[in-house]
Amino acid sequence: MNEHHLETSKSICLTGYGGFDKIQVQNVMLPPALGTNEVKVQNKLFGVNFADLYTLKGLFEFPLPHTLGLESVGRVLEVGAGVKDVKAGDRVVCYKWTGGLYSEFINIDMKNCFVIPPSISDEDAATLPANYLTAYITLFKIAKLQADQSVLIHSCAGGVGWAATQLAKLFSNVTILGTASESKFKMVVENGVNRPLTYENYATIISQSEGEVDCIIDSIGGSNFSISQKLLKPLGHAVLTGCSSLITGPEIFTSSEREALSSSTVPDMQGLVMGSRSISGFHLGLLMDQNPQLIRNSMESIFKLLGDGKIKPRIDSIWSFHEVVQAISLLEKRKNIGKVLLKI
Amino acid sequence: MNEHHLETSKSICLTGYGGFDKIQVQNVMLPPALGTNEVKVQNKLFGVNFADLYTLKGLFEFPLPHTLGLESVGRVLEVGAGVKDVKAGDRVVCYKWTGGLYSEFINIDMKNCFVIPPSISDEDAATLPANYLTAYITLFKIAKLQADQSVLIHSCAGGVGWAATQLAKLFSNVTILGTASESKFKMVVENGVNRPLTYENYATIISQSEGEVDCIIDSIGGSNFSISQKLLKPLGHAVLTGCSSLITGPEIFTSSEREALSSSTVPDMQGLVMGSRSISGFHLGLLMDQNPQLIRNSMESIFKLLGDGKIKPRIDSIWSFHEVVQAISLLEKRKNIGKVLLKI
Repeated sequence: MNEHHLETSKSICLTGYGGFDKIQVQNVMLPPALGTNEVKVQNKLFGVNFADLYTLKGLFEFPLPHTLGLESVGRVLEVGAGVKDVKAGDRVVCYKWTGGLYSEFINIDMKNCFVIPPSISDEDAATLPANYLTAYITLFKIAKLQADQSVLIHSCAGGVGWAATQLAKLFSNVTILGTASESKFKMVVENGVNRPLTYENYATIISQSEGEVDCIIDSIGGSNFSISQKLLKPLGHAVLTGCSSLITGPEIFTSSEREALSSSTVPDMQGLVMGSRSISGFHLGLLMDQNPQLIRNSMESIFKLLGDGKIKPRIDSIWSFHEVVQAISLLEKRKNIGKVLLKI
Repeated sequence: MNEHHLETSKSICLTGYGGFDKIQVQNVMLPPALGTNEVKVQNKLFGVNFADLYTLKGLFEFPLPHTLGLESVGRVLEVGAGVKDVKAGDRVVCYKWTGGLYSEFINIDMKNCFVIPPSISDEDAATLPANYLTAYITLFKIAKLQADQSVLIHSCAGGVGWAATQLAKLFSNVTILGTASESKFKMVVENGVNRPLTYENYATIISQSEGEVDCIIDSIGGSNFSISQKLLKPLGHAVLTGCSSLITGPEIFTSSEREALSSSTVPDMQGLVMGSRSISGFHLGLLMDQNPQLIRNSMESIFKLLGDGKIKPRIDSIWSFHEVVQAISLLEKRKNIGKVLLKI
């Protein structure tokens, strides 16, 4: 590995907070020697996430320049002395919520690395961590959806929503309601949504015709989460998985917007009591640190579901490294259906 | 039934809000003719609840005089034309969150009535609805406790806490932590609590030595619920089942205290997200209206557990109707261990 220490890695760097002009492809110095629990990976594919936009617009502040990217797929070059279950030559998919993965070479902790079974393609693997882990854990481990129940999936054409729809279909006789732009209704219905609803009319439609739902997966956050809670049946459960409502345009986050995650989603405790309802927060990245075994077990379940043909990721489009701005713009403008990938 | 229309029923009435001097045993007119879905019951035993104190001190306002009492056991005299599953001569246990049950004769909706199996005594049956239904639904249907997990049960010597301890023991290898006054430690340990803690030291002890817990059953509410949430493991679940912290002395509720249920228990949404945690409210009385079948199924499970000797209610003491003030005072002063009953 010594020869790598003097080399550089092609990376997508954030040089400041704000607009897309702050994103540059740069050659950055490779990280120093591999840590005991680290894995060195040569990446070739990357998943684009809403979190790239949160970082770009200043929701989280990292020292600059900061390498973007939460998801990658590549081949292991070398492992630290303490690493088990991963070896040189393995194909791995990686996830790290603090970023740094849009880079040809990375050193990453083994708990952020998952060996891809041979039957699964690089492209499919790249769609799994952020979207399918989030959907799997929230539906199976938190809200604990059951047969014959109903689930409302917000942004059901987005990455998490697309995955949640497929996973909810695994439960017998579940009714799936989902919000999306009307132009995406046909696609989300083909993916398994029983009743597509617009963001504008969903609350009225549900309360008038469907009644109430057992479970809600909300990646929009803000006031949407508060409104949605009122649509829960008694003993129903709503899970907050993201805050895409924070991305409203090209603007950089103000300090008040940074607090929107907590301040705009204050739950109505009295409503929870009167309806015997439950709400949860969810943070995939921190949970990977807090309970790596749960994440590993969940990832293995997802690999098996994919291998058995029970889920089928949808790739919206694949872009080259130098097209990163076009790729991230798709998410900002809500133009994608399914996963946007980058390749190197 | 016509002869009953002209009769009166001995009842425990609230004649004003405030102190115990507002409670009087009176003969009140019997209710008018039985409704289609109603059951007429002659009561002999009654469960005393914290809710009696909430009503006495003005948390809920009813037209006065108001007959107190949420729980009773008696024999069915007559059923309305639409009533199934309950017939004259049946022994029943009743629960109604809006009160009115501390009365020798009552007319009550069939959804609030449960036929007692022959093997179960009147006294044991009288302990079940408020305490065991609350503990059962919160542990089994909401927090969904699992084997090998840990649960923190607040006020584990109180009615709900006592029941929750016994129900939590049904899961294999569960660690039960419970808060109580030190004078009650011996009794709660005999009931199954592995680690009794005081209300003053529990948060420090748990965070320092036990780490964190998977599940919390909180009948105290207020700031206790906020503090407790921070002791949850990732994916942990805290359920608010009551607000006994509102009862601090003989004072009548101020309007600000009436809002304490919601205002003093504002959940920390950011904490829920960072720890992937869940919180729930719970209201047994409203759930009985919202989902009577779930309540009936749960009650049948509880009858079976009791019949099989898997749970064993503890009766603190049984008081006569004219001793109602002494009985309710036990709860106000936190002197009871297990259930306080009244008899007529």
